[in-house]
Amino acid sequence: MAEQAPWREVLQRALKKNSNCRHSRYVQLATVRPDGRPANRTVVYRGFLGDGLGESLGETDVLTFVTDCRSNKVGEIAHNPWAEVAWYFPDTREQFRLLGKLSVVNAATADEKLQKGRRAAWKTMSDPGRQQFMWPQPGEPRGGDDSIFKPEPPSADSPVLDAFCLVCLAVEEVDHIQLAKNLRHRYLRGGGGGGEWASQNVNP
Amino acid sequence: MAEQAPWREVLQRALKKNSNCRHSRYVQLATVRPDGRPANRTVVYRGFLGDGLGESLGETDVLTFVTDCRSNKVGEIAHNPWAEVAWYFPDTREQFRLLGKLSVVNAATADEKLQKGRRAAWKTMSDPGRQQFMWPQPGEPRGGDDSIFKPEPPSADSPVLDAFCLVCLAVEEVDHIQLAKNLRHRYLRGGGGGGEWASQNVNP
Repeated sequence: MAEQAPWREVLQRALKKNSNCRHSRYVQLATVRPDGRPANRTVVYRGFLGDGLGESLGETDVLTFVTDCRSNKVGEIAHNPWAEVAWYFPDTREQFRLLGKLSVVNAATADEKLQKGRRAAWKTMSDPGRQQFMWPQPGEPRGGDDSIFKPEPPSADSPVLDAFCLVCLAVEEVDHIQLAKNLRHRYLRGGGGGGEWASQNVNP
Repeated sequence: MAEQAPWREVLQRALKKNSNCRHSRYVQLATVRPDGRPANRTVVYRGFLGDGLGESLGETDVLTFVTDCRSNKVGEIAHNPWAEVAWYFPDTREQFRLLGKLSVVNAATADEKLQKGRRAAWKTMSDPGRQQFMWPQPGEPRGGDDSIFKPEPPSADSPVLDAFCLVCLAVEEVDHIQLAKNLRHRYLRGGGGGGEWASQNVNP
């Protein structure tokens, strides 16, 4: 099994210290649109890949999110997989910037381990969270009938809807700033993203 | 004078409703690096251009931030001016995505109105905020001498340091989601960014 990424423990400590803040798992995910302009939106951090499965999926530095396969970000990722997450923790006044490559796990993904991660994410969603995947095409003009936003929500045990995707961020670079202490630490993965992690203190 | 952008009042209402939250002015700014990868970081919203000057600078839909001229984002903006701000308000559970073009106002900027905006931003900074612009090159390896991070901070009335830049976002597109109501509203500026605003309800 791969060595645990050195920043993972630091991030998990921040999550624990900020657990009273109900939106401490909300992060901002930046991607690049096919026309070269950036896109940025708030998403919910859903844990490291393999969390809660009782077994490692062999990766220790892959963050997960979920999305609708009809959302713009899926097309953006297909065009350019690079993304940067900005994660600010207000209670401890620290920020993590996590740069890496995204991949989308959808209904057609063959890898059984990744499908296991997708099903696990589906199960941990709330009923209203799962219901959203039955809504009409996101971003299209809204009609007058609001009842289509209130279908019977699928249960945790129902089959995973095709629109439901797991989004995996394989992190290659982390920038951690602690504003209260004026400290900044940078972690870099060598070997084109597949090698050892190195880190150093840099000027804030 | 230009008509006020229709989303401005909506954004200001959100700011007011979330004013108890001390980090409600923290937003995430995404740009694109010269190598085509996205960059994303938390910055502090410093008001609309012209706020607090007692006069309009002729624009009603330009958001301001500040940065160090030595930060990576300045080079990124020179290469690709497009940016998207993700702004999540936790108390009211709403998000604004603001897409537009950035420009940097530095010591060499000739436009006197923009210099006025830059000086106004300098004055409203805290002493520790101004002090940061005397620190060594951000992001470079940190040396052992911490005293260089504690120079005598410049006062509000001292000359604006050369490293201090105002960053202006001329907004062309706004996506406003209200999670509590499952509402999503999109505002678009026509005429390649210089025309009238149009808006519509879209599916969340």
